[in-house]
Amino acid sequence: MSKEITSRADDYSQWYIDLVRKAGLADYSAVKGCMVIKPYGFAIWENMRDTLDRMFKDTGHVNAYFPLFIPKSFLSKEAAHVEGFAKECAVVTHYRLKNAEDGSGVVVDPDARLEEELIVRPTSETIIWNTYRDWIQSYRDLPLLINQWANVVRWEMRTRLFLRTAEFLWQEGHTAHATREEAIDETRKMLDVYATFAEEWMAIPVVKGVKTPNERFAGAEDTYCIEALMQDGKALQAGTSHFLGQNFAKAFDVQFSSKDNTLEYVWATSWGVSTRLMGALVMVHSDDEGLMIPPKLAPHQVVIVPIPKPLAELDPHITAIAAELRARGVRVKIDTDDQSRPGFKFAEYEKLGIPVRIAVGARDLANGTVEVARRDTRTKENMPLEGIADSIVSLLDNIQSSLFDRAKAYRDSHITRVDTWEEFVATLDGPGGFVSAHWDGTSETEDLIKEETKATIRCIPLDNPQEAGTCIRTGKPSTQRVLFARAY
Amino acid sequence: MSKEITSRADDYSQWYIDLVRKAGLADYSAVKGCMVIKPYGFAIWENMRDTLDRMFKDTGHVNAYFPLFIPKSFLSKEAAHVEGFAKECAVVTHYRLKNAEDGSGVVVDPDARLEEELIVRPTSETIIWNTYRDWIQSYRDLPLLINQWANVVRWEMRTRLFLRTAEFLWQEGHTAHATREEAIDETRKMLDVYATFAEEWMAIPVVKGVKTPNERFAGAEDTYCIEALMQDGKALQAGTSHFLGQNFAKAFDVQFSSKDNTLEYVWATSWGVSTRLMGALVMVHSDDEGLMIPPKLAPHQVVIVPIPKPLAELDPHITAIAAELRARGVRVKIDTDDQSRPGFKFAEYEKLGIPVRIAVGARDLANGTVEVARRDTRTKENMPLEGIADSIVSLLDNIQSSLFDRAKAYRDSHITRVDTWEEFVATLDGPGGFVSAHWDGTSETEDLIKEETKATIRCIPLDNPQEAGTCIRTGKPSTQRVLFARAY
Repeated sequence: MSKEITSRADDYSQWYIDLVRKAGLADYSAVKGCMVIKPYGFAIWENMRDTLDRMFKDTGHVNAYFPLFIPKSFLSKEAAHVEGFAKECAVVTHYRLKNAEDGSGVVVDPDARLEEELIVRPTSETIIWNTYRDWIQSYRDLPLLINQWANVVRWEMRTRLFLRTAEFLWQEGHTAHATREEAIDETRKMLDVYATFAEEWMAIPVVKGVKTPNERFAGAEDTYCIEALMQDGKALQAGTSHFLGQNFAKAFDVQFSSKDNTLEYVWATSWGVSTRLMGALVMVHSDDEGLMIPPKLAPHQVVIVPIPKPLAELDPHITAIAAELRARGVRVKIDTDDQSRPGFKFAEYEKLGIPVRIAVGARDLANGTVEVARRDTRTKENMPLEGIADSIVSLLDNIQSSLFDRAKAYRDSHITRVDTWEEFVATLDGPGGFVSAHWDGTSETEDLIKEETKATIRCIPLDNPQEAGTCIRTGKPSTQRVLFARAY
Repeated sequence: MSKEITSRADDYSQWYIDLVRKAGLADYSAVKGCMVIKPYGFAIWENMRDTLDRMFKDTGHVNAYFPLFIPKSFLSKEAAHVEGFAKECAVVTHYRLKNAEDGSGVVVDPDARLEEELIVRPTSETIIWNTYRDWIQSYRDLPLLINQWANVVRWEMRTRLFLRTAEFLWQEGHTAHATREEAIDETRKMLDVYATFAEEWMAIPVVKGVKTPNERFAGAEDTYCIEALMQDGKALQAGTSHFLGQNFAKAFDVQFSSKDNTLEYVWATSWGVSTRLMGALVMVHSDDEGLMIPPKLAPHQVVIVPIPKPLAELDPHITAIAAELRARGVRVKIDTDDQSRPGFKFAEYEKLGIPVRIAVGARDLANGTVEVARRDTRTKENMPLEGIADSIVSLLDNIQSSLFDRAKAYRDSHITRVDTWEEFVATLDGPGGFVSAHWDGTSETEDLIKEETKATIRCIPLDNPQEAGTCIRTGKPSTQRVLFARAY
């Protein structure tokens, strides 16, 4: 076990923070609540971002960029929206500093007060819909399928790297449609994109569902989500896609003339995922030795380590293996550190979660083999040099699907159907995970359960079977089970 | 001439703004000084960003992300730096809104005042060097070669889309080195990267040079720059690379133990280009009909227009041409608008600056040809279908280099050597462009010239020939000519 990293059994929270910091993903900054995303962490985020960006473009979306600042009055235009965000806003009130008269440094210049305060965007619906008013006149201007990659700020008192920070990076899609049906289709389509990305790229199984009114986005008619399960039995919302109805179109007066020449309000969606996904990636796969990055997202998929150490001139076998792998599109790192011992290096590369390690030593080479270690199972085997690129490519595929299968087995074994309050509480306090239970459908009961157990309704799964039952808390009649969990 | 766009001869400034807005690059937003980058403009910026990002990575740099906010006290730590940026800062003073007691909306909650104000980053040297203190202990941690893509804010009263906006997008490289020489080498290397990008991708010839102390970055020992010339004879600084000496290391106490185990301050560079480059791209190449995007950066390099209009089923020749071009890596748009007339479409695609337009009509096809129009010369020719992909690929190369050659011929014919004050003023008021003249080397004279003519010293070109002369303004002795110009 890595000495720098607290074990999960000892302290799961500390394990997470240790891992994020020691593996070079992110760190706290001098600005309370804000993090620094370090180069290795950013390289993983770049792979996630580039993959998602391609998926968005393949589904017809384009990127644009809207202002960082939102006039305070804009927030107030949609009632639920301001209610949801007003309490966590960074507010710009002045636009100039000046030298302090006592020479002690710089102070805010009171003469440079803004007429109207500006909010650092917590999300961009308001500024974007204010802009769309100028862009949309006719049904010919629709649909508008726009995405933005941006930083946003939601003031947080208690922060945790990636999971909850005042500033974070994300993408926010904002689309405009002529009909309700088309907007709902878009909402569902982007939910599917997120689910595909989570499962096929991040190797994280997710439940697709819809939020209860309590957990809905501020200003949405419906919030769809994908929910993932972490190794400590807590759930994490990994992405949301909102059907906004005509709320923002009405708040910002965005109307279009339809084919039959009537004036109608535009239908809207918005959808987003953030650097929070980095937290999920760490918490689903990693172990006490360090990270475990799914091959499709790993900055280095393979590291080649010369044994006992790199020489000034690299062994031609190493160069050849690397070239063959790169020709197959594999991201390869060659270890060139001639100071540290192999054992130390192996531990370092395990900490970084590089999926495959190839050790190349003279003795193995004489036998025509290299030693290949996989990060997920921490097993080693000698593989013939002949055809090594093919072997590694198929090993990477295997690791990608093994990580998913393992996470899915864990997740599936942590969905518990319960029918009584005792079972409900015992499950939450015991194995945790998702608890599938009947609920009477009221916000009051949902609040009560949250207060008593800290569990929330993560979602009503899509295509949920309808089944008569009684609410675990109130005993009132219920038509379906919903998924409860304690969550990040 | 496009009716929506003012001609350059009538009003160059208005021509620029019309073009940026009407061609869908950017627009003003509801937030004073901030712009919206529209999808077409953003697609060009993405191509620029991705190209630069690849060039940075090829020269050993990695990306990271640092906080948007900078504690006010950090700015004060480097004296010149705070002097340079304090007057144009967006200042966050509060972190919460609340409902107004009179029900009129939301107001800033006076109870949520920050202990120390936060500045929205105008540039990130201070927060980054504060972080580097934790990352650098030994010479083994050096060099640190990090870049960040980010938004920054510098409050501006008079704004112009892309050229001068309160918020803009940019990249900022921040590197740390063990020696002065290595840091200077890095500064020069990144200047070369910028010059290569400007000339080979943007097709904009640039002069590489060094700034006078007056024009130096706040906190730098030396600022290197690339300077470009716009069609109105005004210069535009297209990128800067700063040698920061040990200024920020000393301000933030960043020391490292050297190979011989002494404690030394780290040497620094920073370098950046921004969405300002979009303004240069527009102003160097475009004409009264619209944009002219160099093929290497064009979102669509070729548009194929079915004549007289697209049918429900595309002509198989069109599909085949598009497929052949795409296989060669060419970005192709197929026109599917069945409402507008060809003449209208041609004007639209000229406005968008798509380098090559292929019109495919039945009569030409019968002759085994298509009509190919190039945007730069606005000439058309019939080209045989046979080998059309090869012809187009070589045409795109030709357009790329023609744009550069034309811009270079213009630039070269607008560098005027003058030896008297009369010639100097007459050149500025006449053809404009760069004026190569002797200067006595003092800031006072530079200020005086700026005050009298609005011309500034754009740079002292690298490898400038040393030549005795007399200052055009004061008659004092001078050792070299420098480049003056009026500038954006």
